[in-house]
Amino acid sequence: MNEKKTPFEFADRMSNVKKSFIREIFKVLGTPGIISFSGGFPNPESFPVAEIDEAVHKILSEDGKNVLQYSSTEGYLPLRKLIAQRYLKRSGLVVQPEEILIVNGSQQAFDLIGKIFLNKGDHVLLERPAYLGAIQSLSIFEPTFHTALLHEDGIDLEAVENILDAFPVKLMYSVPNFQNPTGITYSAHNRKLLARLLEEKGTILIEDDPYGELRFSKEDLPPIKTYLGDQGILLGSFSKIVSPGMRMGWIVATAEIMEKLIVAKQASDLHSNYLAQRIITQYLLDHDVEEHIAKIRSMYNDQCSMMLNAIDRYFPKEVKTTIPEGGMFMWVSLPDGCSSVELFNIAKQENVVFVPGDPFYVDEHDTPTLRLNYTNSSEAEIEEGIKRLGVSIAKLMEKASKNS
Amino acid sequence: MNEKKTPFEFADRMSNVKKSFIREIFKVLGTPGIISFSGGFPNPESFPVAEIDEAVHKILSEDGKNVLQYSSTEGYLPLRKLIAQRYLKRSGLVVQPEEILIVNGSQQAFDLIGKIFLNKGDHVLLERPAYLGAIQSLSIFEPTFHTALLHEDGIDLEAVENILDAFPVKLMYSVPNFQNPTGITYSAHNRKLLARLLEEKGTILIEDDPYGELRFSKEDLPPIKTYLGDQGILLGSFSKIVSPGMRMGWIVATAEIMEKLIVAKQASDLHSNYLAQRIITQYLLDHDVEEHIAKIRSMYNDQCSMMLNAIDRYFPKEVKTTIPEGGMFMWVSLPDGCSSVELFNIAKQENVVFVPGDPFYVDEHDTPTLRLNYTNSSEAEIEEGIKRLGVSIAKLMEKASKNS
Repeated sequence: MNEKKTPFEFADRMSNVKKSFIREIFKVLGTPGIISFSGGFPNPESFPVAEIDEAVHKILSEDGKNVLQYSSTEGYLPLRKLIAQRYLKRSGLVVQPEEILIVNGSQQAFDLIGKIFLNKGDHVLLERPAYLGAIQSLSIFEPTFHTALLHEDGIDLEAVENILDAFPVKLMYSVPNFQNPTGITYSAHNRKLLARLLEEKGTILIEDDPYGELRFSKEDLPPIKTYLGDQGILLGSFSKIVSPGMRMGWIVATAEIMEKLIVAKQASDLHSNYLAQRIITQYLLDHDVEEHIAKIRSMYNDQCSMMLNAIDRYFPKEVKTTIPEGGMFMWVSLPDGCSSVELFNIAKQENVVFVPGDPFYVDEHDTPTLRLNYTNSSEAEIEEGIKRLGVSIAKLMEKASKNS
Repeated sequence: MNEKKTPFEFADRMSNVKKSFIREIFKVLGTPGIISFSGGFPNPESFPVAEIDEAVHKILSEDGKNVLQYSSTEGYLPLRKLIAQRYLKRSGLVVQPEEILIVNGSQQAFDLIGKIFLNKGDHVLLERPAYLGAIQSLSIFEPTFHTALLHEDGIDLEAVENILDAFPVKLMYSVPNFQNPTGITYSAHNRKLLARLLEEKGTILIEDDPYGELRFSKEDLPPIKTYLGDQGILLGSFSKIVSPGMRMGWIVATAEIMEKLIVAKQASDLHSNYLAQRIITQYLLDHDVEEHIAKIRSMYNDQCSMMLNAIDRYFPKEVKTTIPEGGMFMWVSLPDGCSSVELFNIAKQENVVFVPGDPFYVDEHDTPTLRLNYTNSSEAEIEEGIKRLGVSIAKLMEKASKNS
């Protein structure tokens, strides 16, 4: 007389992982004529398709037997050297190739870092709102999350200080450049003060920087790791500058942490796709990636301006939007009392979708915020999509005013 | 006055992961003139380099913008359909494409399955000896391991029964075809009886089958999942039939398990390298992979025969070796009292290396067993390497007899 609802007993950790709202969005994406500002997809027009083709042909003809064979857990050394050289050139950050581990995008970095650091209940500090992929990945390790609010110029330092005083926080996760989801950037001042707080308490910072090179206004700012040294773990990715489908990113960490990360990486999948590592290396050697990135920046600057311009014309004046200095996202705040999940349901009838704020929060629901991506839509789609969204917001606000 | 030896506090789970002996072996591999039977590397002569080059060029020219973009967590549907079709054709096993998840080789399958099933202390049954990659990966989840001895015709069923009676075993891990490290194959009878025992107790079987298609003698046998249904999770891989460097494998599991696996995969790295998925799909569509696999089988049959023949001539008669029906490995048992780690130290002076038995056991040391790989060495290397190993074994036995 087995009364169990399921014949399978899953691990406790799986009950901590929220079902991703993104899957709900995917269901709608097949609808004909729908305009989506939901994904974090780069503009496919930016993909160096012919150059990749050329790189593959070159490495396969010159070294095919090795390119298709097993390789080392750490990753292809010439690629790690190129990454180290680019840090030095771009921001003066001195990184040894041995301090770099090649991983399957930043998402795998979260998993490996969680694996090596987090016991159940360990304290982790997140931005509020925070990147949903990091929340999901770190949730697997059953930590206790704390959050500090984001402002236009960075994280709320008083909140950070209070949390660090009250709890032994092991890890903090942050996206200081063109944050996902808000698009905001930490100021130089904010970075320095945050580093000082973390250093005092011995908290390790996971500094995720997938968009840092996609700055289209103002000046580059130094990575927080510059002020933090060994306490800083820096994440980078080729997803937004070459190709996301190749799932190629890296972790920069000091030797002692790297040793554990390599064990965790080996246990997770032996090594990252070696063909893809060789392709990206060859691409970087044969082409001027800086020129390529400059093109992407200009493209995204245009797309961002178009969206801001359309918002100015179509959104009710009560709605606030962040002004990104780079990256792929902007963050919209509806008037208090409006739920962006409710807006999602109205907007999908109007054939436009986005990601509501809720999945970016650990414990808030029916938030009035939402994320818009501007990099994967044409000028016409941005114009028409923002128009439809403006209509949807007006409908929601009308409904809300009737209810109050 | 901080007296801590390390400034970083790592997670408890990391202390359970044994440092891989394989890393010790890698250190020696750079030595000039060394012959290695250590890795589990396919013969690179078998890699379809030109065909892969052709496939990449085709998909990039026809669909480059999509091929380099983000893709779905589950994996490319046409690839999952091809995998399902091959199961039906090869073994009559009916698998739906929706029951297949594309992962980064079997190693990632261990990680995802561990994630969704294992709480700390949960009971896991392994073969004795067991594949070291699976031991390492599952160790991360801090289970309690039990082991049942392997015989020439499969697992010791009495041991399995005793363990299942004594403990609530959640998962069993098994490689029934040309097992790694022993090269042995479970008989049809052994498979059926094992399935019956597992079914009774509700234990889930992780049936790892990376070598199943590399049979060069006798007849194919049905996967144990055939008898187990939803309680069976079946793992497959393109590593041994196309390319290991592409890290491309899959998990077959029933819908309820698949739902959790997809969440874990998304949290781990969003999705597997999409370019590689598309390459392998195109390769399978445009070429006769069965013909390709037939060539690999014949190649490995020759290499295996050469090694057995050389062992017959060069090893002391007291040494026993398994006779594989396929796959990549054979298992050597030295006389009792001989340690294969000690043999390793003698052999590396003779410029030949292998993997000693110890890392394939959860809790045994100085075992008299060792694994030999025959797929990644030429005829001359096999002849010379086995000769050197024979000399090393004779030295070890002489030393052992003096000590006793």
